Amino acid sequence: MSHLLLVAHGSRRQASNDEIKMMAKKADKVSQKFQKVSHAFLELSTPSIPDGIRNCISDGAEKVVVLPCFLSAGRHVAIDIPEEVKIVQNEYPDIEIIIAPYLGASDDLINLILNLAKLA
Amino acid sequence: MSHLLLVAHGSRRQASNDEIKMMAKKADKVSQKFQKVSHAFLELSTPSIPDGIRNCISDGAEKVVVLPCFLSAGRHVAIDIPEEVKIVQNEYPDIEIIIAPYLGASDDLINLILNLAKLA
Repeated sequence: MSHLLLVAHGSRRQASNDEIKMMAKKADKVSQKFQKVSHAFLELSTPSIPDGIRNCISDGAEKVVVLPCFLSAGRHVAIDIPEEVKIVQNEYPDIEIIIAPYLGASDDLINLILNLAKLA
Repeated sequence: MSHLLLVAHGSRRQASNDEIKMMAKKADKVSQKFQKVSHAFLELSTPSIPDGIRNCISDGAEKVVVLPCFLSAGRHVAIDIPEEVKIVQNEYPDIEIIIAPYLGASDDLINLILNLAKLA
């Protein structure tokens, strides 16, 4: 049973955090591969990444895929998110917790951007 | 003659800024609608948004589409980017400067994320 956890930076503006929550809800509705899609924040909002992963596990996940919703591989993607993930991996050594490529690494992003720009 | 300007937040890490630059270069190569795709940063790096737009205009753009590469419509998307754009619009009233929907508003984003998660 695999769960997907979308991880965003988190904002002081609740409306921004709600957009990430909605994104996870939409993905949850259409995903066939993942039994559940949920969300977590690196900072400034909750649930935290460790709590997000713990929620997946308490919901029955045997594998958790953590996907960083970041456009570039800065310190957050390279260091901070792996450190947060490691906290829970140490608590649950039998659960497979994997970090997926970050959003900006997607080959499809250029086309998505160009399609969006056409709407302007 | 339309140019597309991809606007990202900007980072203290030069490697992160370079990724945005590469993204614009890749989009520039494949775009059919836009004569040129370039990049600018809201803060922490250069070119600034006004300078990015000015560069488009000095390169011959009659229309500049500014696309905010942000996942949620926080203060930066709602207020800061429009304010920066307005500075140059006032300088060049005859140039059409349009702000495209921000990245997170794309309907294709969910599928992109789910495809990326499948790679993990």
